[in-house]
Amino acid sequence: MIAPKNKIKNSNSSCDPISVSNFPNSEKYYSDGSRNDIRVPMRMVSQSDSHDDFGADKNPSIPIYDTSGPYSDSSYEIDINNGLPLIRKTWIEERNDIEFGQSNNSDKSLLSDNKNKISYRGKNGKNTTQMHYAKKGIVTPEMEFVAIRENQNLDNLKDSNLLHQHSGNSFGANIPSKITPEFVRDEIAKGRAIIPSNINHLELEPMIIGRNFLVKINANIGNSIVTSSINEEVEKLVWAIHWGADTVMDLSTGKHIHETREWIIRNSPVPIGTVPIYQALEKVDGDPAKLSWEIFRDTLIEQAEQGVDYFTIHAGVLLRYIPLTANRATGIVSRGGSILAKWCLTHHKENFLYTHFEDICEIMKTYDISFSLGDGLRPGAIADANDDAQFGELKTLGELTQIAWKHDVQVMIEGPGHVPMQLIKENMDKELKECFEAPFYTLGPLTTDIAPGYDHITSSIGAAMIGWFGCAMLCYVTPKEHLGLPNKDDVRKGVITYKIAAHAADLAKGHPGAQIRDNALSKARFEFRWNDQFNLSLDPDCAREFHDETLPKESSKVAHFCSMCGPKFCSMSITQDIREYAEKHGITDYNDAVLNGMKEKAREFTELSI
Amino acid sequence: MIAPKNKIKNSNSSCDPISVSNFPNSEKYYSDGSRNDIRVPMRMVSQSDSHDDFGADKNPSIPIYDTSGPYSDSSYEIDINNGLPLIRKTWIEERNDIEFGQSNNSDKSLLSDNKNKISYRGKNGKNTTQMHYAKKGIVTPEMEFVAIRENQNLDNLKDSNLLHQHSGNSFGANIPSKITPEFVRDEIAKGRAIIPSNINHLELEPMIIGRNFLVKINANIGNSIVTSSINEEVEKLVWAIHWGADTVMDLSTGKHIHETREWIIRNSPVPIGTVPIYQALEKVDGDPAKLSWEIFRDTLIEQAEQGVDYFTIHAGVLLRYIPLTANRATGIVSRGGSILAKWCLTHHKENFLYTHFEDICEIMKTYDISFSLGDGLRPGAIADANDDAQFGELKTLGELTQIAWKHDVQVMIEGPGHVPMQLIKENMDKELKECFEAPFYTLGPLTTDIAPGYDHITSSIGAAMIGWFGCAMLCYVTPKEHLGLPNKDDVRKGVITYKIAAHAADLAKGHPGAQIRDNALSKARFEFRWNDQFNLSLDPDCAREFHDETLPKESSKVAHFCSMCGPKFCSMSITQDIREYAEKHGITDYNDAVLNGMKEKAREFTELSI
Repeated sequence: MIAPKNKIKNSNSSCDPISVSNFPNSEKYYSDGSRNDIRVPMRMVSQSDSHDDFGADKNPSIPIYDTSGPYSDSSYEIDINNGLPLIRKTWIEERNDIEFGQSNNSDKSLLSDNKNKISYRGKNGKNTTQMHYAKKGIVTPEMEFVAIRENQNLDNLKDSNLLHQHSGNSFGANIPSKITPEFVRDEIAKGRAIIPSNINHLELEPMIIGRNFLVKINANIGNSIVTSSINEEVEKLVWAIHWGADTVMDLSTGKHIHETREWIIRNSPVPIGTVPIYQALEKVDGDPAKLSWEIFRDTLIEQAEQGVDYFTIHAGVLLRYIPLTANRATGIVSRGGSILAKWCLTHHKENFLYTHFEDICEIMKTYDISFSLGDGLRPGAIADANDDAQFGELKTLGELTQIAWKHDVQVMIEGPGHVPMQLIKENMDKELKECFEAPFYTLGPLTTDIAPGYDHITSSIGAAMIGWFGCAMLCYVTPKEHLGLPNKDDVRKGVITYKIAAHAADLAKGHPGAQIRDNALSKARFEFRWNDQFNLSLDPDCAREFHDETLPKESSKVAHFCSMCGPKFCSMSITQDIREYAEKHGITDYNDAVLNGMKEKAREFTELSI
Repeated sequence: MIAPKNKIKNSNSSCDPISVSNFPNSEKYYSDGSRNDIRVPMRMVSQSDSHDDFGADKNPSIPIYDTSGPYSDSSYEIDINNGLPLIRKTWIEERNDIEFGQSNNSDKSLLSDNKNKISYRGKNGKNTTQMHYAKKGIVTPEMEFVAIRENQNLDNLKDSNLLHQHSGNSFGANIPSKITPEFVRDEIAKGRAIIPSNINHLELEPMIIGRNFLVKINANIGNSIVTSSINEEVEKLVWAIHWGADTVMDLSTGKHIHETREWIIRNSPVPIGTVPIYQALEKVDGDPAKLSWEIFRDTLIEQAEQGVDYFTIHAGVLLRYIPLTANRATGIVSRGGSILAKWCLTHHKENFLYTHFEDICEIMKTYDISFSLGDGLRPGAIADANDDAQFGELKTLGELTQIAWKHDVQVMIEGPGHVPMQLIKENMDKELKECFEAPFYTLGPLTTDIAPGYDHITSSIGAAMIGWFGCAMLCYVTPKEHLGLPNKDDVRKGVITYKIAAHAADLAKGHPGAQIRDNALSKARFEFRWNDQFNLSLDPDCAREFHDETLPKESSKVAHFCSMCGPKFCSMSITQDIREYAEKHGITDYNDAVLNGMKEKAREFTELSI
């Protein structure tokens, strides 16, 4: 169903108003599930009809996977002080496995009382995870939701010629022609996919991360001591999901870390990930040596009750791997990895995340938080790719995966980083093997180190490739990587670049329907439907703006040429002439006849010339 | 030898002054060949010493392949009215195979009399091509020049640890550990590489295009009826080579096409390519039906005498392939391809470029112009990739290659275009087979169609991959592709993006020394030598600017942290602490001991938890 049209009202609160609206010619659409409260959002991009010259086709609306949440639904009134609607509340409560959790002990003033009362945990150690239900054979509303979401309403297009696509090569993945809730359940039960969905993140629109589903992307936001503010971070969240981020990691390390996170989660329709060791370190004044299991545990619970959907846990940074990094070009580049390495060496002890891993699992299953097992020893330079430290840690992450699965805790595995192209596939293959097909989640990888300022691009190459090879989620890299904190425009560029990489991977894997948008946009391009071409693109504003730089007039948007070639040299225009000519002269037959004649000539020519 | 330091004087002519200078901390360096007039340009980037904390290393200067020509040599006085120095004049004259050619009949006023007098052609049908000399076993100065150029002064770095690199996978290419002039000769004789070098382009600094050499990139410039001016085009040329374009194609289609080209060639140290059919079409008022062999032939000779180094010739657009495009998503998207298709259909005749191919070869060998056999039927959409029209034409291009080689004319093959990742390798493999290992030269390919405004990125993914698989030159795509004409900033972004793709491919192929710059930059990054990191990057200005957005003070450039993490969370800083700690405590032994203890603990833990 199409959402009713009302104006979005931005909150008149003390924080900056959220100024994101929907894309041009787009309407919010909800696909209904088996029950009233399963309403899966999509964006429908309407198209104009083809001009008479091109057959006057009625061009169908194109469904686009929609990560933007209620912000693009004109029937919601957005108030970021109040947070988003609690669409999962009933789903979670009716499972009857929860009780109220501890109150948070930090700043509550930002959100209404109503919101703060909701803090659940598994009842008497009950396991609340999607994997737990999946293994029991139960299809949760979350699973049904993602099944509908992944199918992208393909059935509506089955009469168009837009479904045509090339065969993919998925390197042994098992992508069905249609995703069913049962398939989702089975993938989660097997650990091949996860739905990051903390029972305290009631605002979440569930999504799935796994090799047999659409490739997803993550955007990092977060302040640091040097710059940024809380309001900016919430705005970055909304901005990131507007452009298409599937999950967002809050990597804040500065002041107000709890408060920032609360704002983000309450206003986020996408899963939120964190690296809890950052906050734990704040609590010990930034001295890694002062970290302890107790401080870390309390931090996990604090964040768990807020609703963080996945935790990066660097439990694979083992004491014995640390010396392997000493002669690297760039040592340890993961912040979490270096913090834990320092702790290990200072105390002459094994990583407490490793020794307390089962304790962590207990917490994770009480709230259904997914592990994102951190690659604390990932390479930070091309020179360090695929070395013993990296692959040693990966093997340990595989062992930890099996422990987590024993507790029915969902797991994904973080990966590099900086890897030249010829070494990328080895990363994917090893991950699948060592980590038993748990979803892989990589940062890039960057395929060269020589282009700071352009590392969204150096890494999009590696990201597209590893996505094709089977990586389930790609962590974006912005143009500011290695140089500074991303601003809004950097976030936009990073997200769009990673949507490109993920989509290129979906095409290459042969994900059903992946080529629809390409086909529709190509048809619009050929038929000089400029506005449709803009509207179907990942960044309609940018496409329109670039076009208008040279041909700003509205009349140019119906012109049968563009500024690149001008009217005389336009190949598409000439091609259309050829088609018309062909039609008028019955060209197929004509050419068959000519062809025979020409073949003779061609033979003569060839004989003459060789 | 390092060039002496003088100020560059820009011409005070009527045209805009050329404002390009050298990169920061860079000096022009010339490697000398076997004779005085072989001076191969490189850019040497000097580095600061490592801080005491990092061992106080003297860091060597890093040689960078330099396409910028005399514009970055402070000992030259640039005057674009006068053109560049004629470094090839002696080389060409002493071969004693040339005579003066026809005078050009167009606008000469722009260049001094001296320059216009030089217009050579092969004497009495003598074959002037590099391939001709190569087959006779003769190493020309051009061949020696490119051999020195490809080696990038590696010998000077052999005592540093910067030469370390990963093994490449070159898919059967044959890249030697050191390029010799004899190797260059042999590759050219076999048709596996070309040195595009018209005997009338005396200003050229020779470069080589082939699978066993560094991957090259081409930048397109050119006006169109709708916008742009001549001065802008020359400025774009200088701008493009400043950032690293190895060749430049002048795709002008508007007025003053001859004049524009004259300006460009006289001021270009890189090979210039054109698509002569564009100018031929201007001569018949834009009506493809009025084209004829005679008009085309005269156009070829006119451009040949100006010094164009390679011609795109769409001789593979055969009548029988045209109907194969009628049901494509986007028909024929090559301008040249569509012009010829229209001619063929209008006249019911086979493509005159095909029927006159041997006549064209006669012209090519008289001036040593290389063929860039055009892919007039390349796909213009993901949907059309790898279809019968495309591969039919490719097979014909292979036949034409053999005809050209019979005349000792150098050949490269143009390729697509728009290709999803899983179909890219087939393109490369087919080209090698059908075209007998002639160098491949592709546009992108774009790996998805859904991101107009970002097609430099959609295509960099495909470009890096096909470069790895063996493509010898990558034609850049700018952010304006499909939307408008590129401005200066688009050219910069396009060139840098393609330098990334080409370099990522060089790394993946394992080109000797390819990783030096990555290694040096990574070391600078790890040691917080911010200025060295900027200076070694593909775009130092951008890197510095991005850094300064958050930490503008000069003192920050010696700070041991950056704005991404702030001082407390800086992993590189912590890693350095680890190294120091390790050194102080004799960590290797220590860890060996601890390791044994930890193994025991790890076993206990594992037994406990599984």
